[in-house]
Amino acid sequence: MARAGRDALLLTTEPEIRYFTGFLTRFWESPTRPWFLVVPVRGDPVAVIPAIGQPLMAQGWLSDIRCWSSPDYRDDGVSLLADTLAALVPPGGAIGLPSGGETHLRMPLASWEALRAALPDRQFGDDADILRRLRMVKSPAEIACISRACAIAGRAFARVPEIARAGVPLSGVFRRFQMLCLEEGADWVPYLAGAAAQGGYADVISPATEAPLTEGDVLMLDTGLVRDGYFCDFDRNVSIGPAAPALREAHAALIAATQAGFAAARPGARVCDLYDAMAAVTGGGAESGRLGHGLGMQLTEPPSLIPADETVLVAGMVLTLEPLIDMGQGRILVHEENIVIEETGARWLSPAAPPEIVEILP
Amino acid sequence: MARAGRDALLLTTEPEIRYFTGFLTRFWESPTRPWFLVVPVRGDPVAVIPAIGQPLMAQGWLSDIRCWSSPDYRDDGVSLLADTLAALVPPGGAIGLPSGGETHLRMPLASWEALRAALPDRQFGDDADILRRLRMVKSPAEIACISRACAIAGRAFARVPEIARAGVPLSGVFRRFQMLCLEEGADWVPYLAGAAAQGGYADVISPATEAPLTEGDVLMLDTGLVRDGYFCDFDRNVSIGPAAPALREAHAALIAATQAGFAAARPGARVCDLYDAMAAVTGGGAESGRLGHGLGMQLTEPPSLIPADETVLVAGMVLTLEPLIDMGQGRILVHEENIVIEETGARWLSPAAPPEIVEILP
Repeated sequence: MARAGRDALLLTTEPEIRYFTGFLTRFWESPTRPWFLVVPVRGDPVAVIPAIGQPLMAQGWLSDIRCWSSPDYRDDGVSLLADTLAALVPPGGAIGLPSGGETHLRMPLASWEALRAALPDRQFGDDADILRRLRMVKSPAEIACISRACAIAGRAFARVPEIARAGVPLSGVFRRFQMLCLEEGADWVPYLAGAAAQGGYADVISPATEAPLTEGDVLMLDTGLVRDGYFCDFDRNVSIGPAAPALREAHAALIAATQAGFAAARPGARVCDLYDAMAAVTGGGAESGRLGHGLGMQLTEPPSLIPADETVLVAGMVLTLEPLIDMGQGRILVHEENIVIEETGARWLSPAAPPEIVEILP
Repeated sequence: MARAGRDALLLTTEPEIRYFTGFLTRFWESPTRPWFLVVPVRGDPVAVIPAIGQPLMAQGWLSDIRCWSSPDYRDDGVSLLADTLAALVPPGGAIGLPSGGETHLRMPLASWEALRAALPDRQFGDDADILRRLRMVKSPAEIACISRACAIAGRAFARVPEIARAGVPLSGVFRRFQMLCLEEGADWVPYLAGAAAQGGYADVISPATEAPLTEGDVLMLDTGLVRDGYFCDFDRNVSIGPAAPALREAHAALIAATQAGFAAARPGARVCDLYDAMAAVTGGGAESGRLGHGLGMQLTEPPSLIPADETVLVAGMVLTLEPLIDMGQGRILVHEENIVIEETGARWLSPAAPPEIVEILP
């Protein structure tokens, strides 16, 4: 921060605030109240938060926790935040906010304008990418959390044959799969998407329909479950009934592409090299825009596995490898695994799937 | 919009976009991509979204869906959005964004600044509270969805004695309770908070600890589960072992307060009247800042049951009633139910709890 000329960072979102405080709560699901953390260039961070969060924040390491009774329609924390910033940042000083891709400012626009008006002689600007660069490299403790989340999802995926068979509605598979994730140790299941269709699916973000699984469907489940505040994010494809040759071949090619990405993943390689390694196997790029991404406190984090991302890999980065194959007629097949970059190469965090697609036979 | 002088609304968040399009996906869990909906004062809304969302958006009613391949580090939808706004809003025209309490702008600050720079002769301002006022009054179809979510949670709460007893870790109760919600029909369980402690708890937003339930604990579970895209949000307290007289009395007082709020809830009454009716029974206000709130597509929505909220109730509003009692020594007890305002008064959406606290006996 000192090198970048930032006197303080102003943070407003769940992962940004948790990263520095350990403040872990599902209460962020409520959009009502704004939450603020000020990280000064010298000294400990200061939390400026609604009173409802005081007991939980006080369980953590921060000693300076400033609260107001929220919601307050006249002044929902803006004055308290402005006073805090005025005391920590000298006139003319710079306040940095995460402003680039994948970020947003979690406070009302009207409050944001009021804050700037209250501090006319401080400069508000970006955070010089400090948060992105910090969070992209995980600590061993963070990697242990992600690894545990991956292991839980791996056990749940191994039990899919218990819940998926011809005749079961896809919505029922989704419900039962989330129950398996919880039974295997997930704290909660923030993300589940998937699809079931003949020979491939149209997209990978739709919620479940009531349509029953049918012989010949390929069923894809993609979950981001949370354990101790950290995500996994990987998927599995299974065939309902015997897999057609085209499906078997496509699945094997996806696994080969994932292995090629894994082999390319080592310190010094660039993110785009992983993209290239996978696209070379599948013979094409990503309909969805990328072939993988970072993960950790969020389901998806920087970097993005796209040709334009030249981020150099370093040990501690956690990534998804997510190659895609075009099955024709608007259908795709996607596979996804999670890896961590170590000094000598990559290590699987999810249990790498074999080339043979699992068949669920009657 | 015409009366308020807005030529278009620009919407960026999940509930805002879903409200007008029906676009329902858990993919919002990924913060990577921005999504935009432009609602012009005349004509149909236009979706400006990442290509990964095209197949799902095309399942809905919108015909004008404009896509780009995201993430794009140079221009992540900003030019496409600027072109769309330029075509729909004349020079000098006004573009409204939700800007007040409980809102935020879900796009990077840098993109927001680039958008404004690309359209220097359009005015960007608030949405004249149009979204808040629209969404605060639910349609019969919305009320049916919330009612179904409430019924599912009611069945799950009725089964808490199956999963909670002395010796079970609170984290295990949380996992099993989410499984019950899914088994009873939840599509997913975005919110579960709660606590277990002797004679009351310190707060209502903490995640579960590993501590085992103990005889004499009061266990509170507060869930917001989703069915068909709509939330319930209510809680239950149960006593592990026989309830002490102070706990029995406090629980009965909370139910009396809830009933007082229910009795006061009718078209023409003000939101603050419900606050007053409940606070008169419990003898005090809200540590947490309010005694209830709206709900629907989100766990919490406007209005807030606080003394300052003079919103006049009309039929179709869905509210939580959430009185709180101070148990001393930093402990509280909270009860919560969900109601809908109808022409002749309120109707329970959650199954109103009786005054007697449930005791789970060995």
